[in-house]
Amino acid sequence: MLNLQILGSGAATPTLTRGVTAQYLNFNERKILIDCGEGTQLQLRKFKVKFQRIQYIFISHLHGDHYLGLFGLLSSMHLLGRKTKIHIFAPPELEEIMEVQFRLTYVKLNFEIIFHPIKLKEKTLIFEDHLLEVYAFPLKHRIPCYGYLFKEKLKERGIVKEMIEEFDLKIPEIIQLKRGNDVERENGDILNHLEFTTPPPKQQSYAFCTDTKYIESLKEIIEGVDLLYHEATFMHDMLDRAKATFHTTAQQAATLAENSNVGKLLLGHFSQRYGNTVDLENEAKAIFENTTCVEDGDVFLLK
Amino acid sequence: MLNLQILGSGAATPTLTRGVTAQYLNFNERKILIDCGEGTQLQLRKFKVKFQRIQYIFISHLHGDHYLGLFGLLSSMHLLGRKTKIHIFAPPELEEIMEVQFRLTYVKLNFEIIFHPIKLKEKTLIFEDHLLEVYAFPLKHRIPCYGYLFKEKLKERGIVKEMIEEFDLKIPEIIQLKRGNDVERENGDILNHLEFTTPPPKQQSYAFCTDTKYIESLKEIIEGVDLLYHEATFMHDMLDRAKATFHTTAQQAATLAENSNVGKLLLGHFSQRYGNTVDLENEAKAIFENTTCVEDGDVFLLK
Repeated sequence: MLNLQILGSGAATPTLTRGVTAQYLNFNERKILIDCGEGTQLQLRKFKVKFQRIQYIFISHLHGDHYLGLFGLLSSMHLLGRKTKIHIFAPPELEEIMEVQFRLTYVKLNFEIIFHPIKLKEKTLIFEDHLLEVYAFPLKHRIPCYGYLFKEKLKERGIVKEMIEEFDLKIPEIIQLKRGNDVERENGDILNHLEFTTPPPKQQSYAFCTDTKYIESLKEIIEGVDLLYHEATFMHDMLDRAKATFHTTAQQAATLAENSNVGKLLLGHFSQRYGNTVDLENEAKAIFENTTCVEDGDVFLLK
Repeated sequence: MLNLQILGSGAATPTLTRGVTAQYLNFNERKILIDCGEGTQLQLRKFKVKFQRIQYIFISHLHGDHYLGLFGLLSSMHLLGRKTKIHIFAPPELEEIMEVQFRLTYVKLNFEIIFHPIKLKEKTLIFEDHLLEVYAFPLKHRIPCYGYLFKEKLKERGIVKEMIEEFDLKIPEIIQLKRGNDVERENGDILNHLEFTTPPPKQQSYAFCTDTKYIESLKEIIEGVDLLYHEATFMHDMLDRAKATFHTTAQQAATLAENSNVGKLLLGHFSQRYGNTVDLENEAKAIFENTTCVEDGDVFLLK
């Protein structure tokens, strides 16, 4: 189960209608915050997300509109009694900024921060447990910036129930077959796992890509994801400005989604020059129909 | 002319009804921000204050709810094209925090920050020009914390117009008399300034005191101010909690206002346990009638 809530959908500076980048992701009961611009703690309150339950925070890069809400959020977690550790994945400089800021302002949190520095040149597995894996990959922005791919762990194959009785399968045999291994019995019989099991369910996945130039080769990383969030700071008539500021146009993001066979495309991080997103969405939909320009508070659910 | 706008009136963590501490003060056209908790830039937008016009920022102390909005505000000023320098008065640690944060996140502002470190043991003049003077003074909180007293410069005495013609006063003589000096003429006559002038108008003044224990001796500093903002985090039935956390009760703040002959008392920085401020205000009014518990957006004007 994947439940994504948009907390902030705007670029650069927060406004009364769009917060800066932040998203809350509940993926198989892993409670995740992605980016944390100023005001994120208030957006969490506004959209009734219980922020003490957040276990993991992933920060794309250290531009203010993507991380400046972190100190206030951690501070509020502390003041409201948090004792549970939290994991932060972010460019390494953030650890020093936090250390200096906490030290010079006499802050001693009542909970542990486990900091995972992200500095890499290619797609890398940075987290896994038995239900989820997370990959980071470099984007192309004015400063080091990373995308994150959240992917359900491959589940085991399903055993065909009728076969259990028919072949009197023992539990160790079932375990092997579900793992995709064939089984040789004492009498020499070979049980082919393909005959005894059904394929595992498709792995759900979500890719988060902001802020970045258009990168055609991203399709190798995000191929087939169910949900792709990609920045679309500008419309394509501002391609030069997009290139100069290391951002993407709606048309480019849609082209990437189309080439990568994603399930659904979410666009965000809109320049404040756009009063509404009708034209941005239409530009994208001309290339990739299943596109939504997100608003603060939007929820996207995959079951 | 003194125009004070409350941007945030709550304590500790921002909520949907109360922002954390920040105030905008226009005092004789000096545009001043006092404290800058997270979300202050949004509150400035909400209450339609043109934040590029702010010239001076005064920070009381380095608890998150009083300064964490500074980086976002400075960043937005930069992104929206500011070129004009800005003065920041704050505990010295803030300069290092800003330096580290800007350096490690590759921020190079297009405008100059003139940082004035505030570290002092008694009331000290920290700023003056021909219209305004500002004093800082130590409060008693868990970490170094300062109050600020904004006071109109003493204006010159008014010349009595009829005397100009009657005595054929020359401009240099008028200047001396308005400054409160007597004038000796060539013929030996002495012009007594008290007979030729009226007293200068009363100096308007505003004192800002948060966060602090109750300090009885503050009255020596704030005696007779037109407007006193004082924190009242708790009601007096929570005096022990107030003492333990270095905060003040509504009753104590009112007692200070009464003893100091202030014009009007503004209370703020309320603990989130108080759903409304009726009881806090009543507690204070029993001692000092001219008390208001402030709300975000409130404006107080002295002409």
